[in-house]
Amino acid sequence: MILVAFPDMVALTDRIARQLSARACPLEWHHFPDGESLVTLPDGLANADVAIVACLRNPDRIALPLRFAAETARELGAARVGLIAPYMSYMRQDARFQPGQAVSAPLFARFLGESFDWLVTVDPHLHRIVRLEEIFPIPAIRVPTASQIAAWIVRDTPDALLVGPDSESQQWVAEVAKMAGRPHEVLQKTRTGDRNVQLSVPQHVDFSVGTPVILDDIASSGRTMVQAVERVLAAGAKPPVCVLIHAVFAGTAYEDIAEAGAACTVTTDTIPHVSNSISIAEHIADAVQQVVLSKPVKGA
Amino acid sequence: MILVAFPDMVALTDRIARQLSARACPLEWHHFPDGESLVTLPDGLANADVAIVACLRNPDRIALPLRFAAETARELGAARVGLIAPYMSYMRQDARFQPGQAVSAPLFARFLGESFDWLVTVDPHLHRIVRLEEIFPIPAIRVPTASQIAAWIVRDTPDALLVGPDSESQQWVAEVAKMAGRPHEVLQKTRTGDRNVQLSVPQHVDFSVGTPVILDDIASSGRTMVQAVERVLAAGAKPPVCVLIHAVFAGTAYEDIAEAGAACTVTTDTIPHVSNSISIAEHIADAVQQVVLSKPVKGA
Repeated sequence: MILVAFPDMVALTDRIARQLSARACPLEWHHFPDGESLVTLPDGLANADVAIVACLRNPDRIALPLRFAAETARELGAARVGLIAPYMSYMRQDARFQPGQAVSAPLFARFLGESFDWLVTVDPHLHRIVRLEEIFPIPAIRVPTASQIAAWIVRDTPDALLVGPDSESQQWVAEVAKMAGRPHEVLQKTRTGDRNVQLSVPQHVDFSVGTPVILDDIASSGRTMVQAVERVLAAGAKPPVCVLIHAVFAGTAYEDIAEAGAACTVTTDTIPHVSNSISIAEHIADAVQQVVLSKPVKGA
Repeated sequence: MILVAFPDMVALTDRIARQLSARACPLEWHHFPDGESLVTLPDGLANADVAIVACLRNPDRIALPLRFAAETARELGAARVGLIAPYMSYMRQDARFQPGQAVSAPLFARFLGESFDWLVTVDPHLHRIVRLEEIFPIPAIRVPTASQIAAWIVRDTPDALLVGPDSESQQWVAEVAKMAGRPHEVLQKTRTGDRNVQLSVPQHVDFSVGTPVILDDIASSGRTMVQAVERVLAAGAKPPVCVLIHAVFAGTAYEDIAEAGAACTVTTDTIPHVSNSISIAEHIADAVQQVVLSKPVKGA
């Protein structure tokens, strides 16, 4: 097994490779002044089980180089080429909300499925699509983060009151709360545009029982998380701990959450960021083991 | 026939559509703060011959949205979906120059061929690959610029001495010179890296016969064109006119060429830029007419 890391993913790839006793190699991604780029793969791929490790935080920018990397690995003789994409993008656009819109989620899944033999990803944003297999034409394993996040909370904030900023976050919050053996609440949310949301704390919520731990999958513009922090503080709570599964922070989102009064903001290591505090490498390695062992090379 | 224009290509698309008496519509390309984007197509695509008009100047950035646009046009019932990409990228990486490198040219051609039924492009940089059909699995028409450039030179610089900065540019220079009925010369070039070239003027060249018109397909870093201008001036020539087929200028390349002493720099309208002076719209329209008429809809 050879893990080939896109730049930025070298550290996580090393952690996964250690668990798997696999070889970890960097991929070179050169950018030409004319806007094109060139990927160069390591040697020794012939007949190997290869996994490319990529961060899909900026999916448009990496899609074509990712395709080139997968196809080149095959040309160089790789027996199978899998994709470890700890953060899976484009899962939110799972319906045509307005006429003429691309339904990007299944289109992106099909695009990846054309290049790769299998996929391992970490807690994707699934909503109308319930299971990855509904849109991915290849074996696709979802690595859950709940147990790692719950363990971190128990250790760091034993008096946690888990808080979900909205009903879409309930899926993560309820599970983590159960595993941590702590209570949870969900705020009420009204969305009035890409960047406009209104949150409110339900009347029955009592913040005197512990430290709020606000949990969501991402905080892209950061507005939802900032408002959640503000509302929780306005309701008399202690400065809340913010936990995000994936470190998707646009612009000053990360700083904005701190300025709103959060005690701290932590994330898992699916996207490299200074906030990474909870490692999922071991669970990713388990999933890779599982998918590689269960799908023998054709003809072998 | 409906032409669907990516942002930036609306003006050229209108010019092509007028020639074809076709409908021209803009495509919306929305960028979310999380790095994803969303394309929205116009209505009325059902059963239509659709052509998507896109600028591939920054191919990595547009590749996925382009795929989404093509697939969505099909979902919305388009009979055929063609691609008008006046500037074709990735044609230079047509061999594995170092072990492990992606051979991007055929991989990009295959990627486009998966989404589109036909392609029209303008003077791509073909070198080891001689014809587009060698790498594109779909009908692919190359629109030549030589006659339009020659006509512009005859009108603007009737005493032109065509100059090619290096042997790779000879293909364009010899043809344009012949059409314009003017002499041509080619400089000698030694390349020592991505951004390092050494040019020299062959001893026999006599610049007293006219105004140098230096012609190349692109001037990405601009270094080749800047040196060509400098060498030509050092050899006693009048300030040269610089003609580039595609307006690929990285960083300050366009300004650098002016500062080196060029009289002016002009380009065709394949990539929107202030230097666009030679329109290829009519020839693109002819090629679209040709490919659409020659390939009837399956089953029709």
